[in-house]
Formats: sequence, structure tokens, C-alpha cells
Amino acid sequence: MTQRQYQAHIYVTLRRSVLDPAGTAVESGLKNMGYDNVTGIRIGKYVELSICASDEQQARNQLDRICDELLANPVIENYRFELTEVATVQKAEVNS
Amino acid sequence: MTQRQYQAHIYVTLRRSVLDPAGTAVESGLKNMGYDNVTGIRIGKYVELSICASDEQQARNQLDRICDELLANPVIENYRFELTEVATVQKAEVNS
Repeated sequence: MTQRQYQAHIYVTLRRSVLDPAGTAVESGLKNMGYDNVTGIRIGKYVELSICASDEQQARNQLDRICDELLANPVIENYRFELTEVATVQKAEVNS
Repeated sequence: MTQRQYQAHIYVTLRRSVLDPAGTAVESGLKNMGYDNVTGIRIGKYVELSICASDEQQARNQLDRICDELLANPVIENYRFELTEVATVQKAEVNS
């Protein structure tokens, strides 16, 4: 059975309508350091992981569920991901 | 005086040699949820911001300093960023 290995880069960000206290804190910190040409700071999560699946669609479906169930809070966060195939893995058939 | 506005996407990740407790916790959480085909989870920061500068090199130099001084801990973290020009801004010359 052929399995494909994918590298995923996932970006979890707060929805635009949600206040970003961390981003606001960084922005005022930068202003105190003299960087007043920097605005609109939004801070989110960047997740890298490796996933094995039979094809890309299965990998995408699983990543959607993983993001919805664990990595992102759908009420206040958005997510998007990029998927890159990195290897093909031959797995021995298990005859039951 | 012409100033250019850039949108920056910054990725701050732990160095490979550094243990990632958050990533390890998410990995075991996923295994408990039945996702045992997901490995190598690394969690970092994803920062979006807007920066005004006279040209791209000046924007890059400032972002390097901002990452070194505030957004990333150079001892345990790496950073990289992508820069996209989004607007050109005409600023009135201030005659002193």
C-alpha cells in the first residue's frame, strides 16, 4: 500500500473583528523603541507538521479536522495551510 | 518625499536543536484523538504587520532589527519574513 508523506505549514490568525492584545502590546513596545512606521501588528500561530495519507485530498481533509478540533478556535480564529508532498512510503499490507 | 508601504509576514520558529514542549503536547493530543499519522509538530509565531520605508532594503534592515530586538529570541529561535509592497505614500517635506 502506497502512502504519501506531506509537509504542512499551518497559519492560525485571529479574525479581523477580534481585538489582538498581543499585537497591540508589541506595537506600543515598538513605538517606545522608536519604530513609529510599523502598524497593524497581528500575532498568530505558525505550525509545521508532517502527515502521511493515501493522497492529497485525504491529507487536506484530515488537516481541516485537526485545525477545527485542536489547532484553531473557530469562534475567534481563521486558519489556512500549505501542503507539500515530500516522500512516497511503501507500507506492507497487513493480512488479517 | 516618497515612502513605500510594505506588508510583512514574519515566521518565528524554535531552532531544530531546541525541544518544543507545545509541539510535543499537541502531538500527543492528536494521537489520543486517533491521528497517529501526524508527526514532527513544531509550533511558532506568525506575525503580520505593515511598515513604511523609503525602499525595500530599508524595510528589510528595520525588520531584521525588530525581529532581533523584540519578536524573536536569537538564542533559541530563528526567524524569516516575506515582504510585499502594497502602496506608495507621498509625504509632505517638513521644512525646518
